[in-house]
Amino acid sequence: MDNKVLIFGHKNPDTDSICSSLIMEKLVKNFNVEAKAVRLGNLNKETEYVLKFLNLEAPELIEKVSEGQNVILVDHNEAVQSVDGRDEAKVLAVVDHHRIADFKTIEPLYYLAKPYGCTATILFELFKQNGVEIDKTIGTLMLSAIVSDTLLLKSPTCTEKDVESVKELENITGLKANEYGLEMLKAGTDLSTYSGTEVINLDAKEFSSDTKKFVVAQVNTADIDDVFSRREELEFAMEKEIADKKLNFFVFVITDIINTNSKIIALGSDKSVVEEAFNKKLDEFDSMMLEGVVSRKKQIAPVLLEAAK
Amino acid sequence: MDNKVLIFGHKNPDTDSICSSLIMEKLVKNFNVEAKAVRLGNLNKETEYVLKFLNLEAPELIEKVSEGQNVILVDHNEAVQSVDGRDEAKVLAVVDHHRIADFKTIEPLYYLAKPYGCTATILFELFKQNGVEIDKTIGTLMLSAIVSDTLLLKSPTCTEKDVESVKELENITGLKANEYGLEMLKAGTDLSTYSGTEVINLDAKEFSSDTKKFVVAQVNTADIDDVFSRREELEFAMEKEIADKKLNFFVFVITDIINTNSKIIALGSDKSVVEEAFNKKLDEFDSMMLEGVVSRKKQIAPVLLEAAK
Repeated sequence: MDNKVLIFGHKNPDTDSICSSLIMEKLVKNFNVEAKAVRLGNLNKETEYVLKFLNLEAPELIEKVSEGQNVILVDHNEAVQSVDGRDEAKVLAVVDHHRIADFKTIEPLYYLAKPYGCTATILFELFKQNGVEIDKTIGTLMLSAIVSDTLLLKSPTCTEKDVESVKELENITGLKANEYGLEMLKAGTDLSTYSGTEVINLDAKEFSSDTKKFVVAQVNTADIDDVFSRREELEFAMEKEIADKKLNFFVFVITDIINTNSKIIALGSDKSVVEEAFNKKLDEFDSMMLEGVVSRKKQIAPVLLEAAK
Repeated sequence: MDNKVLIFGHKNPDTDSICSSLIMEKLVKNFNVEAKAVRLGNLNKETEYVLKFLNLEAPELIEKVSEGQNVILVDHNEAVQSVDGRDEAKVLAVVDHHRIADFKTIEPLYYLAKPYGCTATILFELFKQNGVEIDKTIGTLMLSAIVSDTLLLKSPTCTEKDVESVKELENITGLKANEYGLEMLKAGTDLSTYSGTEVINLDAKEFSSDTKKFVVAQVNTADIDDVFSRREELEFAMEKEIADKKLNFFVFVITDIINTNSKIIALGSDKSVVEEAFNKKLDEFDSMMLEGVVSRKKQIAPVLLEAAK
């Protein structure tokens, strides 16, 4: 067991999960609590770009926690997205911007969720409320996370608070969100070195309704056709995941960050749930175009959960 | 369906649930949201004392909410403690100081929990953070709730934040917590006009572990023997609740607010869970004395939930 409080985001960490862990470490240390940001999976290329830009080391990779370990969760709360062994750990705090599900504790805790576009925006507010200095490094981590989660403030998940925070963070860091952010997002779209299995696991989240278990994986791209050309390889990897994890269906979302829409591929015995959810038939390639849809959290997961009830 | 956002605390409302609903109504209206505090049960005498002192009407009583109703929960989150129909309502926000369990949403929401002694202490901070004026009425509601939940700052649930808030609230209201608060607590200990069934339902909360369902009811008193003299009548009422609600056990807690300890009575087929939890045998009256124990939330519910796993 680690004596320090371990801080982590979800499995298959995205830029918000990694950045918010590091930001939270700074905040918690400010209250004289020994804490350490860790991660539950490999960095994606977008996050690698951010850490390289800041000349920061990646947080240590962990796979599980021991019984009684003190932990703080950022950017998630659902058990399937969290560290193995979490139910035997002691959750001291959660800062998150997702729905709440499959989360329970025996004792009271600190829990702050807001329906913002990004966890880092909530942390930005906490820094200000507590009078903790936001230096250039922390500010860049915040800016990176917000740009990533809101696709340069264009996602429907983006709120006024995210926009205001980015404005202030541009002043603090001296960065232009449109320039730095676009470079960062583009760095994340390079899938050339990944296998099909790797691609569908880069940013995959598992969900459970009362009767169905499914995964929604998402990648960003500047060219949907480029990713879709790997369809056979991707479908093979999806079929394997469905069998291994006994999923009812698997949805792979290819999101065009320039034109802000998405093409999805859906497989699995209950893929009709996806058709029902979006009121649209899958074509002969098990795919459909979703115009204006870019947010898994706001535009995809809720409708799938509703249809999968 | 009510067009206004309905704000309520838990069933069998205590002073914190009622006061925090009214306090939250004021805060939410400050953000130009149409909102109305309501309640899920009868007022106890302590809360009646507070509202009479402030010359305030009791919030309207409701029994259920319609599908799609916008609601805000204070002082609770667990489904069994909440309004009927809640799973079909839209929970916009939660402000609470209890553990999180049996709570899920489809969409992101505002959720603020802190491990403080009282919900009103969290609201006190929110008023200050948002620059909302705390007038004498709101201040007295806050002070009353904190004194009630922390038994005049003597409960182990009481935190530094509760103590600091009460100090500031004494200045705002011109009240002395030790004088006003003791009168308020004493008003709540008069059980003479209640039947046995009413006594065990004044402040009853239902809990569920994976295998057990149980109720922990609590009353405050200045004289444990006085309440305990009604044992037969109380046990009769408890047995009926156990049968009606198919409980594994029922714990009735008589808390001495002067000497800060409690006597409990435990009934039900699984009352041995209570003996296991406190590592002490029930006597021939199905009762045991718990020295220094006054907090259901911190000293009773967690050990029972652990033993009932």
